[in-house]
Amino acid sequence: MKQPVKVVPPIRLKDFNPDFHDGLDKDATREKTTKLCQRISELQDLLYANARHAVLILLQGMDTSGKDGAAKRVLEFVEPAGVETANFKSPSAEELAHDFLWRVHRRVPRYGHIGVFNRSHYEDVLIVRVMKLQPERVWRPRYDQINAFEKHLVENRVILLKFFLHLSKAEQAERLRARLEDKRKNWKFESADLEMRKRWPQFMRAYEDTLNCCSTTWAPWHIVPADRKWYRDYVIARVVVGAMEKLKLKWPKPKVDLSKIKIV
Amino acid sequence: MKQPVKVVPPIRLKDFNPDFHDGLDKDATREKTTKLCQRISELQDLLYANARHAVLILLQGMDTSGKDGAAKRVLEFVEPAGVETANFKSPSAEELAHDFLWRVHRRVPRYGHIGVFNRSHYEDVLIVRVMKLQPERVWRPRYDQINAFEKHLVENRVILLKFFLHLSKAEQAERLRARLEDKRKNWKFESADLEMRKRWPQFMRAYEDTLNCCSTTWAPWHIVPADRKWYRDYVIARVVVGAMEKLKLKWPKPKVDLSKIKIV
Repeated sequence: MKQPVKVVPPIRLKDFNPDFHDGLDKDATREKTTKLCQRISELQDLLYANARHAVLILLQGMDTSGKDGAAKRVLEFVEPAGVETANFKSPSAEELAHDFLWRVHRRVPRYGHIGVFNRSHYEDVLIVRVMKLQPERVWRPRYDQINAFEKHLVENRVILLKFFLHLSKAEQAERLRARLEDKRKNWKFESADLEMRKRWPQFMRAYEDTLNCCSTTWAPWHIVPADRKWYRDYVIARVVVGAMEKLKLKWPKPKVDLSKIKIV
Repeated sequence: MKQPVKVVPPIRLKDFNPDFHDGLDKDATREKTTKLCQRISELQDLLYANARHAVLILLQGMDTSGKDGAAKRVLEFVEPAGVETANFKSPSAEELAHDFLWRVHRRVPRYGHIGVFNRSHYEDVLIVRVMKLQPERVWRPRYDQINAFEKHLVENRVILLKFFLHLSKAEQAERLRARLEDKRKNWKFESADLEMRKRWPQFMRAYEDTLNCCSTTWAPWHIVPADRKWYRDYVIARVVVGAMEKLKLKWPKPKVDLSKIKIV
């Protein structure tokens, strides 16, 4: 059975299979993804030339769910000069001394650019909630505040594409083990990862609430089955291409009458 | 007759007298203002020590209405290290490449600080509208976007105090003449000022709409009669003190049991 990608609330996370891959063939799908990624590159040229819209790819998911990997793959053919990537780690003292959207708003990409948020303001209703960094009276109102903020962005021509990389707990175990075993992956391992893993059900609960509270008509969430990297990338690339094609961008008209220009 | 300061929509600007001064005596009022400004300094110490709220004094008004002067006076006794001043001039190319609140959000003061916005996001519904820098379909939705943004700030403990310095056209003429005549004021004179002055009725219309659309329960506008500098400063200082006292800040408790600390 098909599994929807775009979230229309209410949803229950347990109805979504992290291993879902639509019965597709791995190699054939990878080829399709490559074509999609090349298309993103073409569309980026148009986005850049017009400089009227920004595209913001927002990635959330548990550790090892593939936020870095997906961004790398989807933007494989894209001109780096037109990409702005923001990794939101633990907030600095300066960031904590401002409202929680302050550090996020400043990293919104400029018109013409593609932005990537690796984690985002959603951490302020996820890790903050699960790890009890703030009481509920602080994080609860943030759902509405996030929706208002995102509405503002969308009304101001930021195409906001939000992806939850939905990984199974079993697949995470595999990937964490690989980090322990593979010397080239050792550096990625952090003990904090295990602390988060211990709280898997609480995180899933927090994600489910987030998806239900913040899937709006202007900025819906997408649930991406993430146990298979090739399917994950295919889903994201498809959504990005779809959203960018919907803009129906054309090459902008030159600002001068080119027929009158003589280069001597 | 008394003239209200806080705007409760709907209002008409012509009902407000820029020369209003409540029959007060100039020198006596100045002394009162000095006391209020000293009180602001005491309250700033508490604000800084607690670092839970920010105070944002937002000043709008026609040229020569006294935005600089009022900020200087009201913060006369305040510790400069706890003040963040932002002057919003014509946006840069980088700023124009983002949504109109982008440059403003980044200049919101941190908790514990007093911020001053000399001009603000309101220029995007004032000069942008009057000088037709954007079509109505762009600036019209901004009223709601501003209200949502300000709601977010207020919900996140930013005390937002918005002042429209209401100057008469005749008084502006006096002050512009002084800029022409006084060598120490010459540098302030810009030809663009006269272009704005020519559009006085359009500006008043735009201000009136702004005051009506953006005086919210969470962030009301204040109309400050600005023809008399001493009355202008008195009104602003009073509002600032009132808002800061409402926080009922106390000295924060020490993080350790001080009775157990021995300094040897």
